[in-house]
Amino acid sequence: MNGNIANNFGSFDVVFSSGNGSTLKDVNGKEYIDFVSGIGVNCLGHNHPALVKTLQDQVSKQIHISNYYNSDIGLEYSKKLLAITKMDKVYFGNSGAEANEAAIKLARKYGFLNGGEKRKTIVALEKSFHGRTLATLCATGQEKFHPECFAPYPAGFKYIKANDYEAIKTAFDDTTCAFMLECVQGEGGVNLIDSEWAKTACDLARKAGAIVIADEVQTGFARTGTLFASEGLGIEPEIITCAKGIAGGVPMGACLYRGKADVFVSGDHQSTFGGNPLAVSAANTVLSELSKPEFLARVITAGEKIRKTISGWNLPCVKNVRGKGLMIGIDIEQTSGEIQKKCLENGLCVSTAGANTMRFLPPLVITDKEIEKGLEIFKSCLM
Amino acid sequence: MNGNIANNFGSFDVVFSSGNGSTLKDVNGKEYIDFVSGIGVNCLGHNHPALVKTLQDQVSKQIHISNYYNSDIGLEYSKKLLAITKMDKVYFGNSGAEANEAAIKLARKYGFLNGGEKRKTIVALEKSFHGRTLATLCATGQEKFHPECFAPYPAGFKYIKANDYEAIKTAFDDTTCAFMLECVQGEGGVNLIDSEWAKTACDLARKAGAIVIADEVQTGFARTGTLFASEGLGIEPEIITCAKGIAGGVPMGACLYRGKADVFVSGDHQSTFGGNPLAVSAANTVLSELSKPEFLARVITAGEKIRKTISGWNLPCVKNVRGKGLMIGIDIEQTSGEIQKKCLENGLCVSTAGANTMRFLPPLVITDKEIEKGLEIFKSCLM
Repeated sequence: MNGNIANNFGSFDVVFSSGNGSTLKDVNGKEYIDFVSGIGVNCLGHNHPALVKTLQDQVSKQIHISNYYNSDIGLEYSKKLLAITKMDKVYFGNSGAEANEAAIKLARKYGFLNGGEKRKTIVALEKSFHGRTLATLCATGQEKFHPECFAPYPAGFKYIKANDYEAIKTAFDDTTCAFMLECVQGEGGVNLIDSEWAKTACDLARKAGAIVIADEVQTGFARTGTLFASEGLGIEPEIITCAKGIAGGVPMGACLYRGKADVFVSGDHQSTFGGNPLAVSAANTVLSELSKPEFLARVITAGEKIRKTISGWNLPCVKNVRGKGLMIGIDIEQTSGEIQKKCLENGLCVSTAGANTMRFLPPLVITDKEIEKGLEIFKSCLM
Repeated sequence: MNGNIANNFGSFDVVFSSGNGSTLKDVNGKEYIDFVSGIGVNCLGHNHPALVKTLQDQVSKQIHISNYYNSDIGLEYSKKLLAITKMDKVYFGNSGAEANEAAIKLARKYGFLNGGEKRKTIVALEKSFHGRTLATLCATGQEKFHPECFAPYPAGFKYIKANDYEAIKTAFDDTTCAFMLECVQGEGGVNLIDSEWAKTACDLARKAGAIVIADEVQTGFARTGTLFASEGLGIEPEIITCAKGIAGGVPMGACLYRGKADVFVSGDHQSTFGGNPLAVSAANTVLSELSKPEFLARVITAGEKIRKTISGWNLPCVKNVRGKGLMIGIDIEQTSGEIQKKCLENGLCVSTAGANTMRFLPPLVITDKEIEKGLEIFKSCLM
């Protein structure tokens, strides 16, 4: 519709103007069930009372100050976040790509300090996705994201197959500074990572002197039913990157780190906006909501309800249903883009992750009624 | 104070809790005149009635949707922005670094399409600053930003001296895809670029087949008294990048481009948050305020008032006062960091740009009274 916005190349004609809970409304008043949540961003849905109140209060206090100084809300939030995650430090940026750029710089510097210029390689996974900047495109283990037209790229990345025990036998050596993985691969197809394999891989990486980076940009902040998916896998990364749901829709990213990865000194990295009062006030409310005891349990049961319902249809065109919490992948016979379009026409927003894979990332607060309504539309579009 | 926030390494002890106009208040109730505006971000100051109202309304409508779709406010804003800037397209990201990453990708692709893999070099300026991601660090023409610990960096950047006619005779050839410059160098020392030199350099770059990127991350959105500083220089860049003041404090960046630089196709670049309804609603209000006829004139007279007042002191320790609009550099005999600290203790926020250069970037709405109060503190700290 609007070819003048580069981000919207290939977007749909729909123009949204408001939302409530897990329902979006377009400019014509038509309603849509939201199984996308802005690609895993609107974790508290739309028009969430606590988030709205926080932001309405904060914008008249202070939206932004420089990181030369501290803000009251910034100190409150970072203290809370580090305590919950058991991390030592946090760098606040504005996106997942920025969080991963920080992680790459931390890993490189860690390698340099612990093996000199030789230890600079980051081992990432095939089918991964880590961002759209030059360096994060390189970390991304998919050839299509390294087109010649954007070269030269930074060197120092290699890729191994996920869940492949053979690959990790030789993947790590004294040139490896970090092993980088998404705990569930999002963009690459909603691919689950085996917990035992992940633990073994992290062990081998550490034995070779490397640190572990969990890219939780999509999986973090309760998306998979634990606060971070790395908890679910049973790995304890030195670095966790996050973004998407962290501030309920306010642009924000974070790179949390600890122990051996704690190598930034003054001047190494910065961000003008990163962690400003507007963003952290939203993040603070998101974290409070997510920390309510019933919240994570609900994410798990809601995810199970969706997966069980779809499996229960026993449709021949549905080849596989998988996921963790409210991060769900469905392999279908049809072209995913066509089903996505059909769903939208019928009042359901869904996402894709590959040519034949649908991806559902609903708001974490989605109700049973909204799930049922959305799945009804999805089923009718598959048939 | 809070060593746990990486962005705040080396920050001051002050904890701000609110602001009004160009005055900030800390948690102890002490007031500070703001000559920093979050490093050129809070262009409308703090608690600006129109911006506060816009954001309070928007947060209950929609904070974020995916770029799969359009938002009403996103279409309204992008249309207005492109008309005013006479650009063809805009990519919305979340920071200046992201805007510059987009520009670098556009330039590289332009070069690839118009000269193959040979045409990939970006000519940037010495003393420039373009961001903290690996690629934007490389674009930055200051050795201290390319430490060995973060290597390997992407290749394809070289640097020339600003305002040097000799340098531009040989700088551009069939390996050059773009000439990239800040129209006033911010981080590098508030260095003015000579208009005739800039026009000649852009001509020579274009004759060699390259395009021009103006990094207006700090200079854009009225900071220097024109909507963009490139207008002031009289150059017409194919790409303009901006961030900082664009949305009055909401994290946002944009890469505007036209003509030969219009080379992105679907899939080339994206951002999850970029241009979301929250950010563009703020940007829309900022643009409306900046477009009021009296706004730009006031930026110019306010800047002149500051520079003339300081020059008028005839203090031996003040070696040079320069700038454009409300982007002001003052070379002093003293160590800039020490004066910065002393000013803060006395209720004035100022920034630095080098060991002996103070940098003032006040909110663009700063009043004469606030200017006078701030300058009085500054003078007392210099003496």
